[in-house]
Amino acid sequence: MIYQGDSLCPLTWQEERLHLLDQRWLPHQQQIVVLATAAEVAQAIKDMVVRGAPAIGIAAAYGVVLAAQSAYAQAPPHWQTIITADLQKLAQARPTAVNLVWALQRMQTHFSTIVADPVPILLAEAHRIHQEDLAANHRMGELGADLLPAACRVLTHCNAGALATGGYGTALGVIRTAHRAGKLSQVYADETRPWLQGARLTAWELLQDNIPVTLLADNAAAALMQQQRIDWVIVGADRITARGDVANKIGTYGLAILARQHGVKLMVVAPTSTIDMNLMEGSAIVIEERSQAEVLTVNGQAIAPVGAQAWNPAFDVTPSHLVDVIVTEKGVVTQPNLERMTAIMRS
Amino acid sequence: MIYQGDSLCPLTWQEERLHLLDQRWLPHQQQIVVLATAAEVAQAIKDMVVRGAPAIGIAAAYGVVLAAQSAYAQAPPHWQTIITADLQKLAQARPTAVNLVWALQRMQTHFSTIVADPVPILLAEAHRIHQEDLAANHRMGELGADLLPAACRVLTHCNAGALATGGYGTALGVIRTAHRAGKLSQVYADETRPWLQGARLTAWELLQDNIPVTLLADNAAAALMQQQRIDWVIVGADRITARGDVANKIGTYGLAILARQHGVKLMVVAPTSTIDMNLMEGSAIVIEERSQAEVLTVNGQAIAPVGAQAWNPAFDVTPSHLVDVIVTEKGVVTQPNLERMTAIMRS
Repeated sequence: MIYQGDSLCPLTWQEERLHLLDQRWLPHQQQIVVLATAAEVAQAIKDMVVRGAPAIGIAAAYGVVLAAQSAYAQAPPHWQTIITADLQKLAQARPTAVNLVWALQRMQTHFSTIVADPVPILLAEAHRIHQEDLAANHRMGELGADLLPAACRVLTHCNAGALATGGYGTALGVIRTAHRAGKLSQVYADETRPWLQGARLTAWELLQDNIPVTLLADNAAAALMQQQRIDWVIVGADRITARGDVANKIGTYGLAILARQHGVKLMVVAPTSTIDMNLMEGSAIVIEERSQAEVLTVNGQAIAPVGAQAWNPAFDVTPSHLVDVIVTEKGVVTQPNLERMTAIMRS
Repeated sequence: MIYQGDSLCPLTWQEERLHLLDQRWLPHQQQIVVLATAAEVAQAIKDMVVRGAPAIGIAAAYGVVLAAQSAYAQAPPHWQTIITADLQKLAQARPTAVNLVWALQRMQTHFSTIVADPVPILLAEAHRIHQEDLAANHRMGELGADLLPAACRVLTHCNAGALATGGYGTALGVIRTAHRAGKLSQVYADETRPWLQGARLTAWELLQDNIPVTLLADNAAAALMQQQRIDWVIVGADRITARGDVANKIGTYGLAILARQHGVKLMVVAPTSTIDMNLMEGSAIVIEERSQAEVLTVNGQAIAPVGAQAWNPAFDVTPSHLVDVIVTEKGVVTQPNLERMTAIMRS
């Protein structure tokens, strides 16, 4: 297991290498993967060794450090030319989360001022991105928990936890802070097919922190709401547009509709690095479609007959009018729209 | 595999025994289980060797034949007393589907007129129940398919197919008939966690009939509707109340809300043996909660950490106002209410 201070963490930099907790084998095995090249980082992001929008942003930042190490060792004066192919590989690893592009751009802002070995400067920036994300999560944890009533019953979807971020988590950061404050009476987690982030990751990391959690099949969430057993749905995000549309794990859009129908509130918790002010409409977000095998198999075993096809979108888009509140490290946006999103980004 | 005429069938009576196609191992293995006692039939229903409201009704009817065989062999004059315990076991095997109780009651209406060996009379009645169900499914297939527009895109949930009935299926009966009539441009099936009836059973039986099917994770249905790729949701039912509330596989209620929000129509296909005129409100239906292990494991492998809890309701209730049409073998009920349900039951 990897820790960042007190916080479980999906990645760390040690001895000039990026170490990842391989999330494909959780909760059964805790394997650490050690990556030495940017190409390996790109592949690990693609294969979901590391996943979660903030975490892949941080991983990509360290990927830039690895790329610079290699390029500078190859031909010191030309490292910025040599590195281009690696930057592209990293940028194309996954399409939906904007944090990946955001982190790469932030790393590149230093390129023009670097005169000698780029590694110390870029490594310091990658560490800063990581530490800022962790601090943002703690801040969002407080802001989000403040919004919850006493004895609150919450439902989360996918894993927007320590494992999806630099530590502590976005949605699970709010749940952690609210749990410590004694505000939660029940935490439910959707298992989140097909990758089972809820069953495999969210349940695991909450149990590590002794926060009791009850799993349910994704399709049981509507019945849970019908029985008035949920007050808030709390999720993360992979990209939020300028008007507050939210791309997040497949199933979020359906939950948002069900929540609104049942008088349940929807909170989206995401750092400003997830907000893409260049896009207005959620329908413009590229939604990754992943391999059919993720739906047709579980743990490598077929669950469907040979010949069956599957549709496997990794994300969906929830329009802003279904979102009650977006919690960022800069503050809370209620009933998000362009004006309010612009204001929070400028604050 | 078992056939009833042309139709794939989950059960058959051969050599004084009930033969079941064991649905727990589909689509990977086609095992036949041979049952010699009513207690074995009750256990097979409980363990979901056979499942689907009409199919468990038919299985229970054959279970009564086995009970009568045994009781009459034991003490001919007292068979009706001896059989009581077996009838109770069968009635209590699963609580939600009303077809089980309906079939047992229908078998018992003959008890008062039987003077000697009950087996021939009861076996004839069990066969009649089976044949009537098969005929009802073909009739519902026509009635339901007639309601669909050309080039229709349909989504089904769970398995309301040949495997859930005496053959041909209820929801899948409509899909079969519509497919033959060239009315379907696309068939989607929810995988239907936790038991994966969609992935394991619906995909399998549609592929047997060369009907192409695309599976999706249950939580992707909302995105499919958002993209305007579905015209009708077609499902079966486990119990329908006098005013048209529908208990069906967990997830149906959520689909019903999503369908209404997206202008998608909801068709419930069920024989009148599924209609319980003794209950008005769906909230009065007993919803079976099954083992947590069904959520926490897949194919016997854990998918969640040790210590995780799960909530596993097998069914949910869709209020009648979300149902566009109920198709029965007696006719079609649009926008069901007490008056229309009463009229169709009297017709």
